[in-house]
Amino acid sequence: MAASRGVAILVGAGDAIGAAIARRFARGGYTVCICRRDASKSQGLVAELRAAGHDVHAFSVDARQEAEVQGIFARVEKEHGPVEVCLYNAGSNVNKPLLDTTEKLFFKAWELACYGGFLVGREAARVMLSRGRGTIFFTGATASVRGGSGFAAFSSAKFGLRAVAQAMARELGPKNIHVVHLLIDAGVDSEAIHQRMKAAKGIEASDIPPDSLTKTSSIAEAYWFTHQQSKDGWTHELDLRPSVEKW
Amino acid sequence: MAASRGVAILVGAGDAIGAAIARRFARGGYTVCICRRDASKSQGLVAELRAAGHDVHAFSVDARQEAEVQGIFARVEKEHGPVEVCLYNAGSNVNKPLLDTTEKLFFKAWELACYGGFLVGREAARVMLSRGRGTIFFTGATASVRGGSGFAAFSSAKFGLRAVAQAMARELGPKNIHVVHLLIDAGVDSEAIHQRMKAAKGIEASDIPPDSLTKTSSIAEAYWFTHQQSKDGWTHELDLRPSVEKW
Amino acid sequence: MAASRGVAILVGAGDAIGAAIARRFARGGYTVCICRRDASKSQGLVAELRAAGHDVHAFSVDARQEAEVQGIFARVEKEHGPVEVCLYNAGSNVNKPLLDTTEKLFFKAWELACYGGFLVGREAARVMLSRGRGTIFFTGATASVRGGSGFAAFSSAKFGLRAVAQAMARELGPKNIHVVHLLIDAGVDSEAIHQRMKAAKGIEASDIPPDSLTKTSSIAEAYWFTHQQSKDGWTHELDLRPSVEKW
Amino acid sequence: MAASRGVAILVGAGDAIGAAIARRFARGGYTVCICRRDASKSQGLVAELRAAGHDVHAFSVDARQEAEVQGIFARVEKEHGPVEVCLYNAGSNVNKPLLDTTEKLFFKAWELACYGGFLVGREAARVMLSRGRGTIFFTGATASVRGGSGFAAFSSAKFGLRAVAQAMARELGPKNIHVVHLLIDAGVDSEAIHQRMKAAKGIEASDIPPDSLTKTSSIAEAYWFTHQQSKDGWTHELDLRPSVEKW
Repeated sequence: MAASRGVAILVGAGDAIGAAIARRFARGGYTVCICRRDASKSQGLVAELRAAGHDVHAFSVDARQEAEVQGIFARVEKEHGPVEVCLYNAGSNVNKPLLDTTEKLFFKAWELACYGGFLVGREAARVMLSRGRGTIFFTGATASVRGGSGFAAFSSAKFGLRAVAQAMARELGPKNIHVVHLLIDAGVDSEAIHQRMKAAKGIEASDIPPDSLTKTSSIAEAYWFTHQQSKDGWTHELDLRPSVEKW
Repeated sequence: MAASRGVAILVGAGDAIGAAIARRFARGGYTVCICRRDASKSQGLVAELRAAGHDVHAFSVDARQEAEVQGIFARVEKEHGPVEVCLYNAGSNVNKPLLDTTEKLFFKAWELACYGGFLVGREAARVMLSRGRGTIFFTGATASVRGGSGFAAFSSAKFGLRAVAQAMARELGPKNIHVVHLLIDAGVDSEAIHQRMKAAKGIEASDIPPDSLTKTSSIAEAYWFTHQQSKDGWTHELDLRPSVEKW
Repeated sequence: MAASRGVAILVGAGDAIGAAIARRFARGGYTVCICRRDASKSQGLVAELRAAGHDVHAFSVDARQEAEVQGIFARVEKEHGPVEVCLYNAGSNVNKPLLDTTEKLFFKAWELACYGGFLVGREAARVMLSRGRGTIFFTGATASVRGGSGFAAFSSAKFGLRAVAQAMARELGPKNIHVVHLLIDAGVDSEAIHQRMKAAKGIEASDIPPDSLTKTSSIAEAYWFTHQQSKDGWTHELDLRPSVEKW
Repeated sequence: MAASRGVAILVGAGDAIGAAIARRFARGGYTVCICRRDASKSQGLVAELRAAGHDVHAFSVDARQEAEVQGIFARVEKEHGPVEVCLYNAGSNVNKPLLDTTEKLFFKAWELACYGGFLVGREAARVMLSRGRGTIFFTGATASVRGGSGFAAFSSAKFGLRAVAQAMARELGPKNIHVVHLLIDAGVDSEAIHQRMKAAKGIEASDIPPDSLTKTSSIAEAYWFTHQQSKDGWTHELDLRPSVEKW
């Protein structure tokens, strides 16, 4: 195994976007630390990447708990080296009429998509500032810039996360920490969306038009690109959607 | 006292913007119900408006408590009539470096500026939908559209509130409920800002250039105007700043 | 006839929006100077407003000709008094596939919607700056903020006009000239749109759902409101759409 | 020389951004056709790239002349092969008080930054649509999204170009043509800006803080990245600025 380029910590990294980014950054020479609520669900991915010779670890973390977030950064830095890259990818799309949007649902949407992002981003900044370098990624969505009917809870959380990313970019950029907000203005090609499309509209995965959903590997490449940028030209925000998308 | 045109309920209505809107809507024929954490602080305003012949009431409400919000709508509708107008004006500006932004501060900024706005907006929509009419106001700020350095907490909350307003406007407009988001891109002429300017920069109120802060009466007129619009031409968002403001 | 409050010059003022604004500002005490390519088309409106006791004049002006624009400001100021209000309302919606968008069409869309607006806005600023006051209105559209498929020409012109309005607002605000950009995100209730809906979809005017098009009087009221604002709280941009509009 | 991957035609390609993109796409295997008003100014670049074994050609083209634009596409396709990539990079920053912004200056800013971009983009689309593939780049600036004081002419032109890019992206995306708008929110590290900084503020190039201007090579990499994206995940707009930039 070649010397690691440092740690990429991926929080809210599930089987879709998170896994693709894990593959990309492992291939790019990073020690990858995958954090999700239940680490056992990452076992297959860890096994796959280790078999390919990569240094990959999985952790159970609830990103909404400050102590857990602080704990995982401390542990990762101690056991696996300096965090050079951090991704916050958690968030759960939800669409409900306003009157059916319970306070619990509103709170949970925010807690997961926004509050956890703040906690993780702040702790990443803390360790990165000590070394004066690093890259922090936040995954955005259409709902980050549009409050659509039925999306009071989800878009409020995603707008809020975008503000966190902007405020961090403005404060941390001059301190050599690159903050990126990726606006995925599309459905993401994943098992979850296949199941939803089948449940909602009876569409089989095999009937989904090719390239009409954004592949997780394309998302990973976008993050990888921004991470490679030299500091004279950093991208803070970019959008991503299939060629065929209506927008 | 002339027959009331219905109730204007003002939540998070303090001595500045809230009081000006209370005056405007009282003068416009509405029964005004002023809600803030401590109703006793509104006694002077209530006395002033009652002396002028208006129907005005003050309530102690914590807008971050669902039960209190639901309770006040029930009580106001029962005791004072149908809510035709609702304002959500709470929110407390805060500017801190990221690493000094505690999770408590982040949560409290959101709870007050965003979560309370959701609760109040939703309960206002509930009673208004039953009658198929009404106007809901949300007070925004520069931080509603710009995540500035040091504003991770406040701008995240205000971005989030703006998403709530947008989502509500899109869902409720076709049901004849007018949702307005007012972007105040300026300092507001108030006792609070005078004190802050004196503390921070030693500027006496008498030395502040005239018209360089937005008067609360101008804010009240903007809300009053949008409330008067006929349904073929509703404004959802408008900005407001002094002529001399840099932006 | 009461003493005039000064001149409102309306450029690109046709039978729909322009006429409504003429009525509103005449009623508000302004001498109204209506400018369009062919003044004879305003004869009915002039007769109507004069019969109501208003001071109204019509001029033939091609707003795309610098000399004509400068000439009309000189003439109006000399013959009718100081220009206190100026509206630029010209612009012709056009929707063509990109490859069918001729250079002539692209140029003409820009010349009318953007270039004329610059010329008129600049000449209005010139006379207003000499007195240190005035209000300048620009009529925007959905295409001012969205480059939709088929709208390369029209949206390019309207984006361009919005930039003119923003740059003018930032430069002229501190000099006490109020620049307003009104985003009409809807169809406007007018003879022209009735004819287009009939031609395109066979819809009779009587079958158009009530309040589904924005009335020109609502547009006029929005302009009138912003003109009344005191200088501590000016609106630069506001949107306007029917309650039932999808957006 | 390896088989070419097709032609990258770069219009408005000077010694700064244009040259960097020429180098990047030549190195990436494209036949590069450099178009500027005076091809003789590209001789050094052509010689440099040919010495490195690349297939590069320079042409004198006035992008504001439809016939010239159509002519160059015809000639390039005939002599050098299919246009796979097209860049429009012309535009000349200008900052003048409104009253000093002559109609000529306003027209010329638009003609170069916006109208030429429309002509070039449309002709690129025409040849690309015949093959159902291609990438079209437009260079944007801070002025593309902000109408600053003194920028009525330049920001109007750049807003207008952004609308062209958006409209083209929405129409052409589903036809497999990728349209990218790059927002360079910074000064670009170039001879021209060095001279301007020296003239305006007496700053020597050697005294400019490192990485405080965006390098042309970083711009070229951003374009190269978007060109590599697979069609399930295309970026339409991304920003670029130095880490130390205030924004």
